[in-house]
Amino acid sequence: MKFVRFTSESTVKMGVLSTEGIKEISGDLFSTWHYTGETFLLNEVTLLAPIEPNQVIGIGANFVKSKEELPSHPPEMPVFFFKPASSVIGPEDTIKIPADIDSVKFESEIAVVIGKQAKDIEEHEVSDYILGFTVGNDVTAPQYFHQDGHWTLGKSFDTFTPLGPVIETNLDVETARIKAVQNGVKKQDSGVDVMIVSINRMISYLSKVMTLQPGDVILTGSPVGAEFLQDGDHIECVVDGIGSLLNSVVQVNQKAKV
Amino acid sequence: MKFVRFTSESTVKMGVLSTEGIKEISGDLFSTWHYTGETFLLNEVTLLAPIEPNQVIGIGANFVKSKEELPSHPPEMPVFFFKPASSVIGPEDTIKIPADIDSVKFESEIAVVIGKQAKDIEEHEVSDYILGFTVGNDVTAPQYFHQDGHWTLGKSFDTFTPLGPVIETNLDVETARIKAVQNGVKKQDSGVDVMIVSINRMISYLSKVMTLQPGDVILTGSPVGAEFLQDGDHIECVVDGIGSLLNSVVQVNQKAKV
Repeated sequence: MKFVRFTSESTVKMGVLSTEGIKEISGDLFSTWHYTGETFLLNEVTLLAPIEPNQVIGIGANFVKSKEELPSHPPEMPVFFFKPASSVIGPEDTIKIPADIDSVKFESEIAVVIGKQAKDIEEHEVSDYILGFTVGNDVTAPQYFHQDGHWTLGKSFDTFTPLGPVIETNLDVETARIKAVQNGVKKQDSGVDVMIVSINRMISYLSKVMTLQPGDVILTGSPVGAEFLQDGDHIECVVDGIGSLLNSVVQVNQKAKV
Repeated sequence: MKFVRFTSESTVKMGVLSTEGIKEISGDLFSTWHYTGETFLLNEVTLLAPIEPNQVIGIGANFVKSKEELPSHPPEMPVFFFKPASSVIGPEDTIKIPADIDSVKFESEIAVVIGKQAKDIEEHEVSDYILGFTVGNDVTAPQYFHQDGHWTLGKSFDTFTPLGPVIETNLDVETARIKAVQNGVKKQDSGVDVMIVSINRMISYLSKVMTLQPGDVILTGSPVGAEFLQDGDHIECVVDGIGSLLNSVVQVNQKAKV
């Protein structure tokens, strides 16, 4: 099932994507919802990020190029970071390069949407706590990484977390491929077989530190091949089985006063 | 004015602290609210963190010991970090030391509560966007700092962000002193005159990166003197004019499976 959020005549709605169009739903995605009976055509609406995250958590440097490069043991302590919910945009929004720099990096990722409160869960239990999967672009300005190692600012600018187009509840993660296509040229294309910390492992690990909440979004790492984006670029992040997240890129003209 | 959140007979309520007790209020702290006419006595209720933050942002290493040690210019790029809202506890809750370590650090801080959406604001405008101030304890497990510099995990455990007891809307920040008292012994006691990045500067800076939202809480840094807490300790964080945030500390017994 593919959940979407969209606006129709300036009203925000939720729906389920079907062959006939978007069937509107009402209620709480995390508990009970029902079909309203209304159907919308995709070309009549504006798609939004399929969720307004409670919070966004990412994992650092989680892919190698080939299976031969995988470490014999996953790292004891992975690198995690937060991105603010204010950085989230939807599939038809524009990524804005801050005025004092001239490029930002794209990073195509599988984004997990947590469906139930999760604390101290084991790896084999993780799937019970996942509502579904969307595509995320962990846009990053390494120019704003702190010399002491902190990534916070470089990942926090408004528009730096495109999500969408849908939340797919039935993804076969093992066969999924995570791709990025910049201006029509493929730059990333990997499966989870070259992921260092598995999705189940990272969510179990996080749940032993903090209580994960419904609506938390976890960016699971980006394949080798991420590059920089400039003004006028188009970046398409694709996960087969979920969909394609296409955003254009503009340079903010006014000199930032940071 | 001092806002509080509390439970009375298992119901969460908001109120204004007065000499007669807590005058209950209803509505939205960030727009319009009114007195309900009900009054509660402090000893009849359980105080909660005065706000459920939208998000929590902290600044690193922001105090020196004496004015002579202040840098001639504030850093061009301060260190910022996020803490999850799930780490917030109230003035009568217990700080839990994760099972696989035996101590955590306390850090007494002024916590700013953002009152209005803020983007690209200048330092002299910041006060217009602040709802008020509370006391924060930025509890930290440096054992979980990543060797590459990331603090995320070490600051994210449940119970690691005590906030309270009140949101004071009229604090004279310039004369405030930030103190911590561990088991009756004073360990921190500084004014903002030894703060490196001023509150107005850090909030202006953040607003030029991300859109700050009502309910965002900004931890403004902790004075020199933070130490470690063990099982059985009591830690009191105090800011004159706001109040005292007293929490006990327990060791979680079960071996963590992280």
